[in-house]
Amino acid sequence: MNALNSISAYETLKSRFHRLAALQGAQSVLHWDRATMMPEGGAKARAEQQAALAMICHDMLTSPQLAELVASAEETASSLPEWDRANLAEMRRLLVHANATPADLVERLARQRSETEMVWRHARAANDYASLAPGLDKLISLAREQAAAKADALGLDPYDALLDGYDPGRRSVEIDRLFAELESFLPSLLQEVMKAQKAAPQPLAIEGPFPIALQEKLGREIMGVLGFDFQHGRLDVSHHPFSGGVPDDSRITTRYDESDFTESLMGIIHETGHSLYERGLPEEWRHQPVGRSRGMTIHESQSLLFEMQAARSSAFVGWLTPRLKAAFGGEGPAWSPENLLRHYRKVGPSLIRVQADEVTYPLHVILRYRLERAMIAGELGAADLPAAWNEGMRRYLGITPPDDASGCMQDIHWPSGSFGYFPTYTLGALAAAQLFAAAKTAVPGLEEALGRGDVAPLLGWIRENVHGRGSSLMPDDIIASATGGPLGTGAFRRHIEVRYLGR
Amino acid sequence: MNALNSISAYETLKSRFHRLAALQGAQSVLHWDRATMMPEGGAKARAEQQAALAMICHDMLTSPQLAELVASAEETASSLPEWDRANLAEMRRLLVHANATPADLVERLARQRSETEMVWRHARAANDYASLAPGLDKLISLAREQAAAKADALGLDPYDALLDGYDPGRRSVEIDRLFAELESFLPSLLQEVMKAQKAAPQPLAIEGPFPIALQEKLGREIMGVLGFDFQHGRLDVSHHPFSGGVPDDSRITTRYDESDFTESLMGIIHETGHSLYERGLPEEWRHQPVGRSRGMTIHESQSLLFEMQAARSSAFVGWLTPRLKAAFGGEGPAWSPENLLRHYRKVGPSLIRVQADEVTYPLHVILRYRLERAMIAGELGAADLPAAWNEGMRRYLGITPPDDASGCMQDIHWPSGSFGYFPTYTLGALAAAQLFAAAKTAVPGLEEALGRGDVAPLLGWIRENVHGRGSSLMPDDIIASATGGPLGTGAFRRHIEVRYLGR
Repeated sequence: MNALNSISAYETLKSRFHRLAALQGAQSVLHWDRATMMPEGGAKARAEQQAALAMICHDMLTSPQLAELVASAEETASSLPEWDRANLAEMRRLLVHANATPADLVERLARQRSETEMVWRHARAANDYASLAPGLDKLISLAREQAAAKADALGLDPYDALLDGYDPGRRSVEIDRLFAELESFLPSLLQEVMKAQKAAPQPLAIEGPFPIALQEKLGREIMGVLGFDFQHGRLDVSHHPFSGGVPDDSRITTRYDESDFTESLMGIIHETGHSLYERGLPEEWRHQPVGRSRGMTIHESQSLLFEMQAARSSAFVGWLTPRLKAAFGGEGPAWSPENLLRHYRKVGPSLIRVQADEVTYPLHVILRYRLERAMIAGELGAADLPAAWNEGMRRYLGITPPDDASGCMQDIHWPSGSFGYFPTYTLGALAAAQLFAAAKTAVPGLEEALGRGDVAPLLGWIRENVHGRGSSLMPDDIIASATGGPLGTGAFRRHIEVRYLGR
Repeated sequence: MNALNSISAYETLKSRFHRLAALQGAQSVLHWDRATMMPEGGAKARAEQQAALAMICHDMLTSPQLAELVASAEETASSLPEWDRANLAEMRRLLVHANATPADLVERLARQRSETEMVWRHARAANDYASLAPGLDKLISLAREQAAAKADALGLDPYDALLDGYDPGRRSVEIDRLFAELESFLPSLLQEVMKAQKAAPQPLAIEGPFPIALQEKLGREIMGVLGFDFQHGRLDVSHHPFSGGVPDDSRITTRYDESDFTESLMGIIHETGHSLYERGLPEEWRHQPVGRSRGMTIHESQSLLFEMQAARSSAFVGWLTPRLKAAFGGEGPAWSPENLLRHYRKVGPSLIRVQADEVTYPLHVILRYRLERAMIAGELGAADLPAAWNEGMRRYLGITPPDDASGCMQDIHWPSGSFGYFPTYTLGALAAAQLFAAAKTAVPGLEEALGRGDVAPLLGWIRENVHGRGSSLMPDDIIASATGGPLGTGAFRRHIEVRYLGR
């Protein structure tokens, strides 16, 4: 094929991937609707819709003609501008991943995911693990089947093959190393922090109730301050908070508790971080592979950058306090910045991952990582999960869940077929600490600005160094180019020591 | 091809059309979301999603392989059970329609529809026809292009070719005849009714405000009474009320006016009628062409059967009155069944079609029918529409719109690219009157049951005679088999004479 044909092959690819991105956007909206709006009786029809769309996308990515077009475009890749070259490389990556899973398995997975996720909603509410187990077992089998197929095609270990789909280039050998480091210092650090907090003044109770309408109003106000644009997004309610939709129509969700506003507010800030990342992706590459977000570790680093690094800083909480008081009519010593910080930084073992503090959170993730590796290795099935879970909770956190609803059923990930996703939460936490440290060094006055409720300096830096990169670099290259070094545990450790032990 | 292959061809077709139906269901959810949930800034991305889905569906329907499968299956059609035969015939019909429009035109139409519909939302709110006109002009041109292409392929007049897409088998020559009949008696009947109403006691004002939350609560209550299942559906708000979603996840919308509950309540009942039709379609044919609703005339007959025939009957309003009083705390003579009937049956020329009474409504539709025929014939463009509209309003109803917002911009149909749809409103009204008369004859005690808020007798009859037919018969055959005669103006005329003149 001559150079002219090769160039036109790339142009054809761009138009194919543009359509693919639009269909994936449609999927994302359907997913959001299912979690927020859909009546229960719509589940079966929705599963059909999602499976049909998944199949169409899979068919597009695995068509022999597409492979030919990519091969042809690659012949003159070196003459393409840098971003187009990265775009083509990303097309190849998506194509390899899609071809690694047989079409019928894609369809079975999509169907089982939709079904089991709906079952999970009931099972968790009713603390009825027995009703979830059969579907979960099927999903574990399907995930193993997928891991084996992908391992074959990608030349990777089965778990790594799944991981690579969530976090391109990530390997478990590296996770093992980072998690071993965390396990080496985090338990003793946790004991130190708990000891220090025991000796310090205890948080005063902040008395509710906090009407949901007021919590929502405050949430929207803070979203606006952080740069969320309601012309391009919504805030709604779902069982499991998430950030979905598409970059220019960003749908974030939260859940409210009338007796406690702190969780939903930080949850909103967390999802806003995800949303800002999507909105900040390079606009000129909107419907192209290189314009997409760069995997879940980077994604989680963006939510945690806002939730854990920025919003729980003394500076920001100082700015936030009078707004909280105004929102809920709060008065007295419980509504001081110091007391709010004590609440927002309270550390200790707890049952629920999404409510965990940032010191114990990695231990929740390490447990899930070990369990899902065992599932994919064929060493753990749904029947033995509750016991293995509870044993792990005792080992890592010294507590035993009273039931499965607050134990192995708490997360949506496995019931929705996501295996290989969990580690990215903690990798994201490490990245967030590293990025925030780099941002503070690079941008003088960044923390002072947070004290004025001004996130512009932080957002400016992160848009340039992370959001604006799209998928033009691999995740670790984004981190290295933004922070000057590879992803490690150092910045996270220092962050914990400074924030919780004042070192 | 031998008989065995022909049978397997039909089975393959069923699986293809199953996927197609799932994708069309996805489209329907995206359409609902756009009208109810989507932030404005999401319009461009949504247009891409909808266009991509439209293209995928069009590609599926126009693939040469599908045509071969249909041809092959048709070879042994005579040996198929009746419903499968009808299913295959419907597959052929959909295929012929899809192939009649070139792929690039489908894509241009989908894009222009999404864009112009969003523009219309602003333009109507701002009474700014100038901002709508360019997009509308493009849509008219595209619709003419489509009509010409379809006319060629289907061997029909261009306008009939569009009409056939909304109401299978419908031809303008028949509409011309029915509308001529209406024009022959309706204006004089209208004068008589207005004269009679002038001589009768005038409706007492029902004083508001009626808080939206209470209107919504009442609306949901009445929906439940009519048989709407909230496990399989939702009620939301949109600019232009509609019924969408899929049979097992039915999404209806309304709009509220704090100073008047009557419109939103009847609007909800109207959309509930549409929704009940979809839910009542034969469940065993859910994702097959023969399981779909049978065009817009039958659809509108179902909404009007509930709104105009059942819910505005003396019996039902008698049952409804105490519920209205309880909902809004109403008391006194204005809240009597007689006074409510006077409101619900007030007749007179008005500007807005969706608020028009059932006597003048056909005149609104006849105007739109004449205008859109002129547009498709190339005799009327967007620039001349306001003048033509206003002249028509004077001719048919004797009034002149003060502005385009309450004139030619009031409806979403043309801005969303629907030409050939309007006549089905009035054909549906004729069918509703004919069906209700037949139901009352067939089911003794039907009206008395309505007086107890019991729609079961009506619903039972209509499910058997209309809903359960799916697309196994042509629209006029459904009407003829349910009512014993062809669609005509007789039952409608009698209905008007009985209800408004007590004849």
